[in-house]
Amino acid sequence: MKRNVLIIGAGGVAQVVAHKCAQANDRLGDLHIASRTVGKCEAIIASVHEKGAMKVPGVFAAHAVDAMDSAAVVALIRRLGVEIVINVGSSFVNMPVLEACIEAGVAYMDTAIHEDAGKICETPPWYGNYEWKRRDRCKAAGVTAILGVGFDPGVVNSWARVAEDEFLDEITSIDIVDINAGSHGKYFATNFDPEINFREFTGTVYSWQGGKWQSNSMFEVGRVWDMPVVGEQKAYLTGHDEVHSLSARYPGADVRFWMGFGDHYINVFTVLKNLGLLSEKPVRTAEGLEVVPLKVVKAVLPDPASLAPGYSGKTCIATIARGVKDGKPAEVMLYNVADHAEAFAEVGSQGISYTAGVPPVAAALLVADGTWDVGTMVNVEELNPKPFMNLLNVMGLPNRVKDAGGDRELAF
Amino acid sequence: MKRNVLIIGAGGVAQVVAHKCAQANDRLGDLHIASRTVGKCEAIIASVHEKGAMKVPGVFAAHAVDAMDSAAVVALIRRLGVEIVINVGSSFVNMPVLEACIEAGVAYMDTAIHEDAGKICETPPWYGNYEWKRRDRCKAAGVTAILGVGFDPGVVNSWARVAEDEFLDEITSIDIVDINAGSHGKYFATNFDPEINFREFTGTVYSWQGGKWQSNSMFEVGRVWDMPVVGEQKAYLTGHDEVHSLSARYPGADVRFWMGFGDHYINVFTVLKNLGLLSEKPVRTAEGLEVVPLKVVKAVLPDPASLAPGYSGKTCIATIARGVKDGKPAEVMLYNVADHAEAFAEVGSQGISYTAGVPPVAAALLVADGTWDVGTMVNVEELNPKPFMNLLNVMGLPNRVKDAGGDRELAF
Repeated sequence: MKRNVLIIGAGGVAQVVAHKCAQANDRLGDLHIASRTVGKCEAIIASVHEKGAMKVPGVFAAHAVDAMDSAAVVALIRRLGVEIVINVGSSFVNMPVLEACIEAGVAYMDTAIHEDAGKICETPPWYGNYEWKRRDRCKAAGVTAILGVGFDPGVVNSWARVAEDEFLDEITSIDIVDINAGSHGKYFATNFDPEINFREFTGTVYSWQGGKWQSNSMFEVGRVWDMPVVGEQKAYLTGHDEVHSLSARYPGADVRFWMGFGDHYINVFTVLKNLGLLSEKPVRTAEGLEVVPLKVVKAVLPDPASLAPGYSGKTCIATIARGVKDGKPAEVMLYNVADHAEAFAEVGSQGISYTAGVPPVAAALLVADGTWDVGTMVNVEELNPKPFMNLLNVMGLPNRVKDAGGDRELAF
Repeated sequence: MKRNVLIIGAGGVAQVVAHKCAQANDRLGDLHIASRTVGKCEAIIASVHEKGAMKVPGVFAAHAVDAMDSAAVVALIRRLGVEIVINVGSSFVNMPVLEACIEAGVAYMDTAIHEDAGKICETPPWYGNYEWKRRDRCKAAGVTAILGVGFDPGVVNSWARVAEDEFLDEITSIDIVDINAGSHGKYFATNFDPEINFREFTGTVYSWQGGKWQSNSMFEVGRVWDMPVVGEQKAYLTGHDEVHSLSARYPGADVRFWMGFGDHYINVFTVLKNLGLLSEKPVRTAEGLEVVPLKVVKAVLPDPASLAPGYSGKTCIATIARGVKDGKPAEVMLYNVADHAEAFAEVGSQGISYTAGVPPVAAALLVADGTWDVGTMVNVEELNPKPFMNLLNVMGLPNRVKDAGGDRELAF
């Protein structure tokens, strides 16, 4: 039994995490949220109270912290008496916050791989560069650290485990497909900070195929997927966190991640990239001003947070596993469909933040009640998926399964 | 008889003007070139000597001048004893230089309309805003001022006059078509300063149709033209100087200008424009730096001067006049085809600078020998076109005509 939660970060995903923690504060205890800018934390808490999201009266307090400073995070954890840290800050703070949790002996979870600001797309497996190097220390300290427990990575990893446990005797391929069929109504915008968003697509695309890492470039490999609700959608082989852990558990399977992009997004991205406007290296104008082009692109694009009120349409994210069942070829698709407008109505965020922010709160509840409090570092596919599925079903992210037996709810 | 020439400006067109003046310095006398940066003038003179372009031994001297300062230009003209000024500086300096020529009593010519840096695309007719307001003063002072005597405007205006004099009894339409079917081999580049280039396409597109000004937006109206040598090419209704003078001489005709653009150019332009990256208004980055997006775009694009060595392919520019001849409908196309690589070999510039830079030197020769020294302000269509055509034919820009009688040289 663990209680009292500290949320690190105050962006769009943190907003969802805060609302979902408040809706379950009878089981989670005191709630705290900390970021460098305390005003952003206060605004999130205000939105929680506006929606009347606190299930029972209780603490929800804002704090200022520089999450790059492990000692400061340790001090905050100890002062507040929290036992669970949900880290949804920038990917750059993951290791400093994990170090603080190991030091303080509290549970840690995040939703994305650690990134070093100076390096784009390091060598695979990505988790081997930072996270897994700390696995033995987590085990020795008895610290539960759940890596990448957002939607993708996160729920999609758990679905791979469901496929392994329930649907297939042998897995030969895992394809994760992430489609945002929503519309923000702008000429062009990114759903996250443009600087972070574009970083994802400028490096090498790694996939695990034929028992080894394969390298491609972004938008080099694309195919149309026929998805539930949102229909036929073109998606492209993309580098993504979960490929780097699932390939360790299923080395005999091909593991690929596909992200949907419209032709318009690709066109704008391609023009900007080819002109050099996505570069992080400064250029000098004719007037002698030094400026980083990517920062100017960010300045002219809409603020991602401004998109939520007008966002319409749905997302559909799926894990499609193929393999053998009872000696015959078999395939199963596990998926969720989320609605942008419904997410905004409930928690004031668009659907992409919603799908990323609900799962870590489900994980926190499973750590709080001991179910997932495993006392070591794990990726999500290492944990029992059934209680996680059941929680997501009632927390706003219903799971469905589609196979030869039809299209139905996934519950245990 | 006038002698001694001062070239204002030291860009790509000035380079061509310098070489062509040198090739005719037996008739033009002393040559001078002046710009704010004297080093650029010296580099042009060095390239003239490298090519051995001076027809006879003579003066070719570089000078520093701020062409926005009329008094400084007057002083320079008087000190050097020049009688002809070829202004191929930035469009922003046209009126200050014209004022200097009126004051000093010397001949003036330019290749583009005057522009006020703070205004984009003023009300038509454009010449009425600045140039024609000084017509009476030119006449009173006996100053020859030939407006817009590049290729377009310039040669294309003269072709309209040829159509009037030689081929049609009545003109019902004049379409000027400007196709650059060349390739610079870069992902994207502009042939002139990107800042000036993009300014041309962000304002209203004016054409003269049905006896009045019609307004369109850029890339709104396009059609395919079947052009000599370069074949079928798509061109778009574009605002351009010559429409504003030809419509005064031929008010009963429709007068339109069409510029060729590939889909790739339009796509890049559209993306940049819609994102706000062509804006001249500063934006502020997340780090607080104030920067004009258009200046950053200029900084990442190739320097136009760097394109010349690798430029291949041809340009084709035409005036297509329709009307009545001997009581029957008739059409005549007058055109030139120029080759980028040949231009580079001769004068070290690409074909677009070449077509713009040769005609003002032909005009200077006609002012020098008195043929075009008319002692007042004129647009090119007001001058006898025959000696101009004959000169261009031997100066590297052969004129051709295509009508019901075939496709042949145009010479008198």
